[in-house]
Amino acid sequence: MKEELLFGAAYYPEYMPYDRIDTDFAMMKKAGMNVIRVAESTWSTLEPSDGTFDFHYIDLILEKAAAYDLQVIVGTPTYAIPSWMEKEHPEVMVTTAQGRQTYGRRQIMDITDPVFLKYAERVIRTLISHVAEHPCVIGYQIDNETKYYENSSPELHRRFTEHMKQKFGTTDALNRAYGLAYWSNSISDWKDFPDPDGTINAGIAGEYDRFRRHLVTQYLQWQADIVSGYRRPDQFITQNFDFEWKGYSYGVQTDVNHQEASAAVTLAGCDIYHPSQDELTGAEIAFGGDSTRSLKMAPYVTLETEAQAFKEWTPYPGQLRLQAYSHLASGAKGLMYWNWHSIHNSFETYWKGVLSHDLEENPVYHEAEKIGAEWKKIGQERLQITKQNRIALVTDNHSLTALKWFGIDQKTTYNDVVRTVYDSLYELNLECDIVDVNALQTDRYDMILTPALYSATEKTISQLKQFVEKGGVLVSTLRSFVSDDHFSVYADRAPHGLTDVFGMYYQEIAAPGKTMIDGAKAQFMLELLNPAADTVFVSYEHKYWGSYAGITQHAFGSGTAFYIGTYLDKAAMKPVLKKAAQKMRTLPEQYTNPVMKDAQEKFGFPLILRSGVNAEGNKLHYVMNYSEEDMAVRMPYAHVKDLVTGTEYQQGDELKLKDWDVCVLQEL
Amino acid sequence: MKEELLFGAAYYPEYMPYDRIDTDFAMMKKAGMNVIRVAESTWSTLEPSDGTFDFHYIDLILEKAAAYDLQVIVGTPTYAIPSWMEKEHPEVMVTTAQGRQTYGRRQIMDITDPVFLKYAERVIRTLISHVAEHPCVIGYQIDNETKYYENSSPELHRRFTEHMKQKFGTTDALNRAYGLAYWSNSISDWKDFPDPDGTINAGIAGEYDRFRRHLVTQYLQWQADIVSGYRRPDQFITQNFDFEWKGYSYGVQTDVNHQEASAAVTLAGCDIYHPSQDELTGAEIAFGGDSTRSLKMAPYVTLETEAQAFKEWTPYPGQLRLQAYSHLASGAKGLMYWNWHSIHNSFETYWKGVLSHDLEENPVYHEAEKIGAEWKKIGQERLQITKQNRIALVTDNHSLTALKWFGIDQKTTYNDVVRTVYDSLYELNLECDIVDVNALQTDRYDMILTPALYSATEKTISQLKQFVEKGGVLVSTLRSFVSDDHFSVYADRAPHGLTDVFGMYYQEIAAPGKTMIDGAKAQFMLELLNPAADTVFVSYEHKYWGSYAGITQHAFGSGTAFYIGTYLDKAAMKPVLKKAAQKMRTLPEQYTNPVMKDAQEKFGFPLILRSGVNAEGNKLHYVMNYSEEDMAVRMPYAHVKDLVTGTEYQQGDELKLKDWDVCVLQEL
Amino acid sequence: MKEELLFGAAYYPEYMPYDRIDTDFAMMKKAGMNVIRVAESTWSTLEPSDGTFDFHYIDLILEKAAAYDLQVIVGTPTYAIPSWMEKEHPEVMVTTAQGRQTYGRRQIMDITDPVFLKYAERVIRTLISHVAEHPCVIGYQIDNETKYYENSSPELHRRFTEHMKQKFGTTDALNRAYGLAYWSNSISDWKDFPDPDGTINAGIAGEYDRFRRHLVTQYLQWQADIVSGYRRPDQFITQNFDFEWKGYSYGVQTDVNHQEASAAVTLAGCDIYHPSQDELTGAEIAFGGDSTRSLKMAPYVTLETEAQAFKEWTPYPGQLRLQAYSHLASGAKGLMYWNWHSIHNSFETYWKGVLSHDLEENPVYHEAEKIGAEWKKIGQERLQITKQNRIALVTDNHSLTALKWFGIDQKTTYNDVVRTVYDSLYELNLECDIVDVNALQTDRYDMILTPALYSATEKTISQLKQFVEKGGVLVSTLRSFVSDDHFSVYADRAPHGLTDVFGMYYQEIAAPGKTMIDGAKAQFMLELLNPAADTVFVSYEHKYWGSYAGITQHAFGSGTAFYIGTYLDKAAMKPVLKKAAQKMRTLPEQYTNPVMKDAQEKFGFPLILRSGVNAEGNKLHYVMNYSEEDMAVRMPYAHVKDLVTGTEYQQGDELKLKDWDVCVLQEL
Repeated sequence: MKEELLFGAAYYPEYMPYDRIDTDFAMMKKAGMNVIRVAESTWSTLEPSDGTFDFHYIDLILEKAAAYDLQVIVGTPTYAIPSWMEKEHPEVMVTTAQGRQTYGRRQIMDITDPVFLKYAERVIRTLISHVAEHPCVIGYQIDNETKYYENSSPELHRRFTEHMKQKFGTTDALNRAYGLAYWSNSISDWKDFPDPDGTINAGIAGEYDRFRRHLVTQYLQWQADIVSGYRRPDQFITQNFDFEWKGYSYGVQTDVNHQEASAAVTLAGCDIYHPSQDELTGAEIAFGGDSTRSLKMAPYVTLETEAQAFKEWTPYPGQLRLQAYSHLASGAKGLMYWNWHSIHNSFETYWKGVLSHDLEENPVYHEAEKIGAEWKKIGQERLQITKQNRIALVTDNHSLTALKWFGIDQKTTYNDVVRTVYDSLYELNLECDIVDVNALQTDRYDMILTPALYSATEKTISQLKQFVEKGGVLVSTLRSFVSDDHFSVYADRAPHGLTDVFGMYYQEIAAPGKTMIDGAKAQFMLELLNPAADTVFVSYEHKYWGSYAGITQHAFGSGTAFYIGTYLDKAAMKPVLKKAAQKMRTLPEQYTNPVMKDAQEKFGFPLILRSGVNAEGNKLHYVMNYSEEDMAVRMPYAHVKDLVTGTEYQQGDELKLKDWDVCVLQEL
Repeated sequence: MKEELLFGAAYYPEYMPYDRIDTDFAMMKKAGMNVIRVAESTWSTLEPSDGTFDFHYIDLILEKAAAYDLQVIVGTPTYAIPSWMEKEHPEVMVTTAQGRQTYGRRQIMDITDPVFLKYAERVIRTLISHVAEHPCVIGYQIDNETKYYENSSPELHRRFTEHMKQKFGTTDALNRAYGLAYWSNSISDWKDFPDPDGTINAGIAGEYDRFRRHLVTQYLQWQADIVSGYRRPDQFITQNFDFEWKGYSYGVQTDVNHQEASAAVTLAGCDIYHPSQDELTGAEIAFGGDSTRSLKMAPYVTLETEAQAFKEWTPYPGQLRLQAYSHLASGAKGLMYWNWHSIHNSFETYWKGVLSHDLEENPVYHEAEKIGAEWKKIGQERLQITKQNRIALVTDNHSLTALKWFGIDQKTTYNDVVRTVYDSLYELNLECDIVDVNALQTDRYDMILTPALYSATEKTISQLKQFVEKGGVLVSTLRSFVSDDHFSVYADRAPHGLTDVFGMYYQEIAAPGKTMIDGAKAQFMLELLNPAADTVFVSYEHKYWGSYAGITQHAFGSGTAFYIGTYLDKAAMKPVLKKAAQKMRTLPEQYTNPVMKDAQEKFGFPLILRSGVNAEGNKLHYVMNYSEEDMAVRMPYAHVKDLVTGTEYQQGDELKLKDWDVCVLQEL
Repeated sequence: MKEELLFGAAYYPEYMPYDRIDTDFAMMKKAGMNVIRVAESTWSTLEPSDGTFDFHYIDLILEKAAAYDLQVIVGTPTYAIPSWMEKEHPEVMVTTAQGRQTYGRRQIMDITDPVFLKYAERVIRTLISHVAEHPCVIGYQIDNETKYYENSSPELHRRFTEHMKQKFGTTDALNRAYGLAYWSNSISDWKDFPDPDGTINAGIAGEYDRFRRHLVTQYLQWQADIVSGYRRPDQFITQNFDFEWKGYSYGVQTDVNHQEASAAVTLAGCDIYHPSQDELTGAEIAFGGDSTRSLKMAPYVTLETEAQAFKEWTPYPGQLRLQAYSHLASGAKGLMYWNWHSIHNSFETYWKGVLSHDLEENPVYHEAEKIGAEWKKIGQERLQITKQNRIALVTDNHSLTALKWFGIDQKTTYNDVVRTVYDSLYELNLECDIVDVNALQTDRYDMILTPALYSATEKTISQLKQFVEKGGVLVSTLRSFVSDDHFSVYADRAPHGLTDVFGMYYQEIAAPGKTMIDGAKAQFMLELLNPAADTVFVSYEHKYWGSYAGITQHAFGSGTAFYIGTYLDKAAMKPVLKKAAQKMRTLPEQYTNPVMKDAQEKFGFPLILRSGVNAEGNKLHYVMNYSEEDMAVRMPYAHVKDLVTGTEYQQGDELKLKDWDVCVLQEL
């Protein structure tokens, strides 16, 4: 891999209406692109019939890539299977609770099925051994957006029963752990272990989901092991992790434990699709970036993001460029569009690439040219940053599952809480890592936030307690620390094990009705907090619930713990987080920098600042205007240079940003 | 059974996170509770494997109940089956039109399956024989919230065909009764009788539903017969009847004919769950109570109601006590919460009991203590009442089914009409019985209301005609008397057989658009009524429908008949019902009592009055403030004593009620 | 067939609660009715058991029809099958992607199944041979509202594979045509052709739908061929084509290609159900009429329309008569109600006929009497018209399928675009033919409109290009000319092959957000049009999209082409269509008639004018007031006579129309 920021697109000559690889590669080069991702999802072209391989597209790509000096990421093609496999071996199709799935879509096979695995292994070995030595190949993507595809086959039931037997030993232990006596679900013999598809036991369903997420981890490791047999030391292995999808990349992935699964790769990768046009805020780019960077606490790559895609996402002038820099601002080592061209056939013809269906230059292509030129001019060593954040936002897909069963409100999910907390930090320019609860190293941080950490083990609870005791700031929201690892609600005062830390307890919950708190609406649920004598608190505003607190702040040991007992929107959440940040051992820059302090309302969304240290060891600040209005602020930094324009600024100078503009300031 | 009001909760030591039965029973006693309901739904604990019984929980409960002087209602455990049964005999799972159901939930077995019945009989016999002689056991609950669980197995199809053959004899009679020629559904041989799952014949679907409701009746009788073989004469048999569920107990139960099914029990029981907090009106407690009391025209027991339950139902201070008295005001002999503790596991961890998950005292517990103390002080002989209502609201779950097929509007159901009429009576403090159409004894009443009695037999029609002729007041709404028992629309002028009684007929229906009537919106449907010359009527207000009446009043014989040809909300319905009540032979108190007459707007919701006669023969008035405002009215009764405070009042004295307060006035 | 306008109803003595055929026929005659439609959907009555026929109802009908001088249309009874057939041969039930359907409804058999066809042929031959010679029988309806009923059986899969093999020859050709490489769907052997149920390839799904629409064509031809073996030369064959159903007849039928299927019939027929009361506009009567008339460019018959039907459709006084004349105004040779009586049983008891359930005279019947009397008085030779429209609206159910996959917006369908364009023409009194794209003869027209013609072959594109070149006016909307016949998006500048005609191209699409155009909201989607130098255009009003045009007008050859790049509502669409109409070679009357020109705002909806030439060769104008307000305009025509009242008018005289009134003006 060259020491360049990666800039490119997925490329499928297989999908093209006519042969134009030279044209396409020339256009890419003209736009400053330097990398393509290939082969992913093209199994039926690579192996048109069982055991017959046809690599002419791959060979053509590599030959031309060399000619045009493009780097290539080769994907294993396993995320969509050829029809011949389904016809010969229908059992490769995934069986869900709704039965065996019909062939057609991608991501619809049983990733644990031996026949599928046999075929997958053969195509991977054949393909990777074929390409590994080619100098253009810089790395591999194993599979794509892998999940377990709601697999719930009889064989999986059997394996899950075995898993539970290993985990609990006796049926009595199982019955106790999950309270199976309820509704007559207890068993006295493992052969009677109920089919998880019908279970009404959230804990067992949660364990089943976790067990199935682990299948993804195992499958990716299995692919990585195969690929590792061929790859050169300079080639990376990555996966395209994706996020919960709400029409765009929204929050923590339900079906994959990214932290666990990322052990299989050498370079973390992800796709990030986000609202655009009037809805572009950069929050998804930041969330996805912070999540993926935190997997290995190292630079990552955005393997897919939109060029145009849906009609809602065709970028306004300036937005494509702003987006590109936003990925770098999160610590990416580059980005790739999905995909180069718009699809002419099949399912996703509505999804437009860098090129529209006419395959000519267009406004989006022209803006990509600008990005490519700037990046080439400035260089990776200046633009790629690393971070040492002192704030951690803790996530947990086990708690996510719990909230599916025991939601805050009908339409309010775990990720809604996570995103409200995250987005509030983002809008305050408080940068954080996003850390899986099981990978949390509390000593890296001054402030830890636990949005809706419903299921928390004694270990986590004691870890957080010690963190505060030693001087940390803990911010927890409603529905944190409710249950143990089996979704059994703790049978003592809530929040379990932390009532002394937070200086409050609660016994009851209520619907908010018209309840207000600090002038804002208390939404979806109230935990009725009883503060201790030494606790600072904000009460609910309500005829009957007014005797309870809704937000508490409590000194414990050398630290401070904040608890938010209801759902707040960003506007109401931000003042609480601001207050919490001011308790951090090392104050964030916005509380110390004289310019920022004086004009606080200006240094926050839509003006986004994200910082890090580049390879040259310089401190870098990405300053971004996420609005359609032009913007002017006083320069907060002592002495900086805009790497794009070359302009230098002293503290207090006026910094102007056009609509959707970005500047990259290097401290001098 | 002691002569005490029942006050207690369902209790499941099987579900408890640790052994604390002494603590729990001591807390119950402290709160004045005197009864627990046990064993219902704990089959897998009672019989952990096929034929192996383990009664240690039962024995412990009974031993401790004796020690703490608690009464016990033992439930047969059949409403949830153990996993081993499903593993050994998958056929015990109910087969619906969607196929055989997956094990997991409760209420998911085939209650007609011989294997299931064999197992059920064994566990019932074993359990009941084991406990029957224990002095604490005051009664039995057979099964719980029983339904037919959408059973539609091939075997049931066969039995239904047999049923139809018995009912009609010839296929010609069948074809004629249901008009099967339509869309080519007629048959000439019983072997061709179509599968009811696919039927488009509402009449056959209606008969199938009735046939299946009858399965519930038979099943409960079968359980009652078994239990009767063991029970002592002083022990009762009850069932926990529940109502149509709309997130709370809403209206007439679809899947059970309570009247028919209640033959199996010696004491009518039900569960009543209702909105709370700002939505608490008492209407559901009154509706459920009036329904259940009317089954045997005798006191009943509320076997389940909420202590806290959902976040939306956590009671405001005062509400739990107001609710408790409201059950007594309907004629209950007590109430039990579901359940004692909050559930820590499985499905309903969101459902909070008297105790929250921390199992400590809390505000709800403290309010329960207050209830317990007051009830103990005043005593059952003073608080439990019987009623002789002169108004009957007629319900019919066959018409309910008909309205599912031929709705008034997409979202407007049979129960919406029933509840609008009932709730209007309730808010006017006009107390009524709620009587199944097949159990209606017209001579008990001065006024009869038939909301949406779509399917009415000739017998019912002639019964109602005679009732009016002899001086009764009949109030019927739209969609009454439309069809016969087979949902065949009567082929003469509507309303069939009663055009002379109502003094009108109609041929056409219409959508209301912007139609008003008497200043209110005419909603969902208009029946275009043609009044006779001697009929008093209110016309629709509409350019084209204005030539038709929407509400008619007609003298017939010695009585009066009112017809409401459109859907009115409560505000519009109440004036009509008020007018009708003034035609009753014996005027209700609000039209004769001088204080009430002078301040009519004060004696109605949210001020609710419900009355009866207690065991001492005294007239008792429950006066309830269903609002968050304090209230003051002049005392309407000549001379009464508040049984709670001991205060005496003369007519005209000021009576004050705090928000959500109640007082119990005994006439002196 | 007599030379009379057809006026009557479907009649089912089989469904009647008692024998009253004499009463019914006498009532029909009294109302001026002259025709009934019988036997359709009564198979189980005609053949109560396999091979046993019972024609007593048919014989009775024909005997009485002769007695009462009524004409009879005999329907083949095949649209609902008897239960015995399903019991003997379950395979006659249609198998959809959801499995084999359960017996009960109509339209639920496999119309390609040999067993079904054997039975169908026998009952058709037996019935038609039985009635063909009867003098009252004027024609036959083959089947009813035929569709393919989502048929997707394994056998159909096999036939579809065979069809594709015939169409493409090699799998390579198939792979290329549909871009099957995408998501690994390409095949190298026909045995691997994927099951269309699971396909994600819109093109293959589109071909499958077309293939299945063709099954309907074949089936109707098969029935017609059988019936033709018996029918007399004076007897017609018709089918009851229906439209996309949106609670009423809305737009182009999804599941039948009416144009192709109408080859089987000698007289085009259809059913038209439409909103009524405040929602009555006449647009559906006009749309259905224009569609059906255009099938054979000849008079058609409305075989079903509502008398009362739903509560929403009970007509206001005057509406039934207005509706009846509206059918004639589209060129119908008469209309029949569905149905004579209201249904007393089964599924459609909510659907009221000419007679309500009481089977007595009623307001609707009385208005029918008025229609009957007027039509008899005036006569068919004066009232029935033919048309030579110079405007064609082009429809295509293949594009309809494409838009299901690639919608303009989540809820915006192909038919929404079609209806907005059609309804705008209708409200402007610009009469048009509605022509299937494959039957379009461009030389018949001066103006052609292509709403959302997504899939357009090179042939169509070149046809339209030549049409404009030679002087025609072409009006196309967004999502026209996007793809070829396989739903492959054209890989050059859009709109493919017509950029020179329209004088613009576009590469990008966008969501409108707050975009306006010409003061109206641009809805759902923007195509970002780049106009050529000589193109007249209207730009989008938007900060970023304002640099693009949204509506273009361009001279090409001797003609003019308009393109509308976004979704406009009727109010915004009408000015564009008005402008386009003014470019027509022969100007429509509204632009030349002096009275109309001077009072343009008066000559448009709710005042609807529809014209033609009657059998006597006179020009006839139906003038209709679609509003509840009385209306007065100056007479636009030189010298006319109102055929109903006999009043004569000179140009400029005042013409008054009551609410929902119609007059029929014959030019003198």
